[in-house]
Amino acid sequence: MYRKEIKVLDCTVRDGGLMNKWQFDDSFVKAVYDACVAAGIDYMEIGYKSSESAFDRKEVGAWRFCEDRDIIKVIGDNKDTKLKLSAMADIGRIGFEDIAPRSESVLDMIRVACYVHQMDKAISLAEHCMDKGYEVTINLMAISKVMESELDEALNDVAKSRVPIFYLVDSFGSMYCEQVERLVDKYQKAMPGKTIGVHMHNNMQLAFSNTITGIIQNCNMLDATLLGIGRGAGNCPLEILLAFLKNPKYKLRPIFDVIQNKLIPLQKEISWGYHIPYLITGFMNEHPRSAIKWIDGENKDDFVTFYNNMLDGIDLE
Amino acid sequence: MYRKEIKVLDCTVRDGGLMNKWQFDDSFVKAVYDACVAAGIDYMEIGYKSSESAFDRKEVGAWRFCEDRDIIKVIGDNKDTKLKLSAMADIGRIGFEDIAPRSESVLDMIRVACYVHQMDKAISLAEHCMDKGYEVTINLMAISKVMESELDEALNDVAKSRVPIFYLVDSFGSMYCEQVERLVDKYQKAMPGKTIGVHMHNNMQLAFSNTITGIIQNCNMLDATLLGIGRGAGNCPLEILLAFLKNPKYKLRPIFDVIQNKLIPLQKEISWGYHIPYLITGFMNEHPRSAIKWIDGENKDDFVTFYNNMLDGIDLE
Repeated sequence: MYRKEIKVLDCTVRDGGLMNKWQFDDSFVKAVYDACVAAGIDYMEIGYKSSESAFDRKEVGAWRFCEDRDIIKVIGDNKDTKLKLSAMADIGRIGFEDIAPRSESVLDMIRVACYVHQMDKAISLAEHCMDKGYEVTINLMAISKVMESELDEALNDVAKSRVPIFYLVDSFGSMYCEQVERLVDKYQKAMPGKTIGVHMHNNMQLAFSNTITGIIQNCNMLDATLLGIGRGAGNCPLEILLAFLKNPKYKLRPIFDVIQNKLIPLQKEISWGYHIPYLITGFMNEHPRSAIKWIDGENKDDFVTFYNNMLDGIDLE
Repeated sequence: MYRKEIKVLDCTVRDGGLMNKWQFDDSFVKAVYDACVAAGIDYMEIGYKSSESAFDRKEVGAWRFCEDRDIIKVIGDNKDTKLKLSAMADIGRIGFEDIAPRSESVLDMIRVACYVHQMDKAISLAEHCMDKGYEVTINLMAISKVMESELDEALNDVAKSRVPIFYLVDSFGSMYCEQVERLVDKYQKAMPGKTIGVHMHNNMQLAFSNTITGIIQNCNMLDATLLGIGRGAGNCPLEILLAFLKNPKYKLRPIFDVIQNKLIPLQKEISWGYHIPYLITGFMNEHPRSAIKWIDGENKDDFVTFYNNMLDGIDLE
């Protein structure tokens, strides 16, 4: 038995790009795209949609901007597939004028990522994108640090908006299943009729199991990445998720193929996945940036000192 | 809040030894022991108890036999600690005469591992060990391949025995939380009054979350290993489990210390942990031996061919 309402979104390039400033070879992005099409994935998030003025193209790759011309150059116009293309937009790094009408773009969906204090702006941007023809979601980040009263207010605003999909995002990889259950339940009660999505991180090796918890609770948009690539400890691995879902439209072979040909070689250049410093920021409910910085430093394997510093509240940034 | 009945068993040397034939340096075993003592771990499983005739000491290390003299040489007599020492016994590789009275041994516990058709022998050996003064458990392996009628009969036999602790073992790393829930429930109903333990493997990155599922269902013996070391995809990582458990007697620093000083260097010699071939045997509910052999071979990164072979039922052994 499978639930046909479930949609899987691959965010390999978008979230993985946080580890290499989106400087992927074109052949990598094309291979991920081809694999998503062949595997029957519903959405591929190819990067962030940003203003040209927000970043320097000398420092970050094309997938920080997701210009249509760059997408088309690498993967074509995506006209003959069932795969939909998504880009994420950060509040403050994009203006309404940066969004072309959907009829002029190869993108199908814009996902608006925001912190709780940015919810008004996020709803405004998301509804603007809807008016331009896109599917949209709002992804509220860093939820494990949000005060309940603030969250209630934000959810109330989303409930009144036209935005149809809202994401539970475990930005710090700090949630156990009971927290996921509680928050999904809260989201569903506060925003009846809206689809809930889940985006989980793997600091405590719970990204996949927390995604299952979401599935059991009727979440129907599921984020995952190839081999779990993503910032720090990474994400729910797409290959494990597809093996779990029983929908026959999903195929594993193309996923194994791109992993062996592209992800395994990439592991020699950039590293991601479960590691002790990410566990420490995860169970301490902190942003992974301190862990990422530590792992980049000279004493990267001195976990005891990193733990002591975190306990002492020493700013490692 | 924490549940004081919960006991944590570290099986780093015993299960990790499956990857290097128990050929650990003495300094490694001593460091694991010291860390377990300092971290407040309840049991350390230091290896398998086997007849000298069952294996060749030229091929396997001392921890395949767990002779008292070898244990004492490396870690001392363990008299002044709260840590209990355990050894696992495989049916068919040990005789009653190989077990010294507990009063003459540094071991506190013998865990009897068996397949379902060996249950009579397992009960017999376990009760023999009890009569010699040891704490005992029975660990029924490969449960995901056992027919329900056979399992019922085995559980009925255990229920009538004096053995106080029985383990749910996910040998193939093939169980989702709903299977864990169902089996723990079955075990508890079939064997009222017995303590249930859990030993989980990480093929689908579910070892820790399945251990949490066991905890929620009142399982009170929890197996884990440092950095998840173990055969194939490995086990529930001890450091993640301790961070989750709220019992103040458990300390994380000694665990991070031994990981950085011993486990991280060991990763350069032997490899374990989540990998695509282990995922494939896991979700196909097969023994990991085909995956281990594949990863040892020339085409180790050709996951598509491995998957095709598994689907075709080609014997890779």
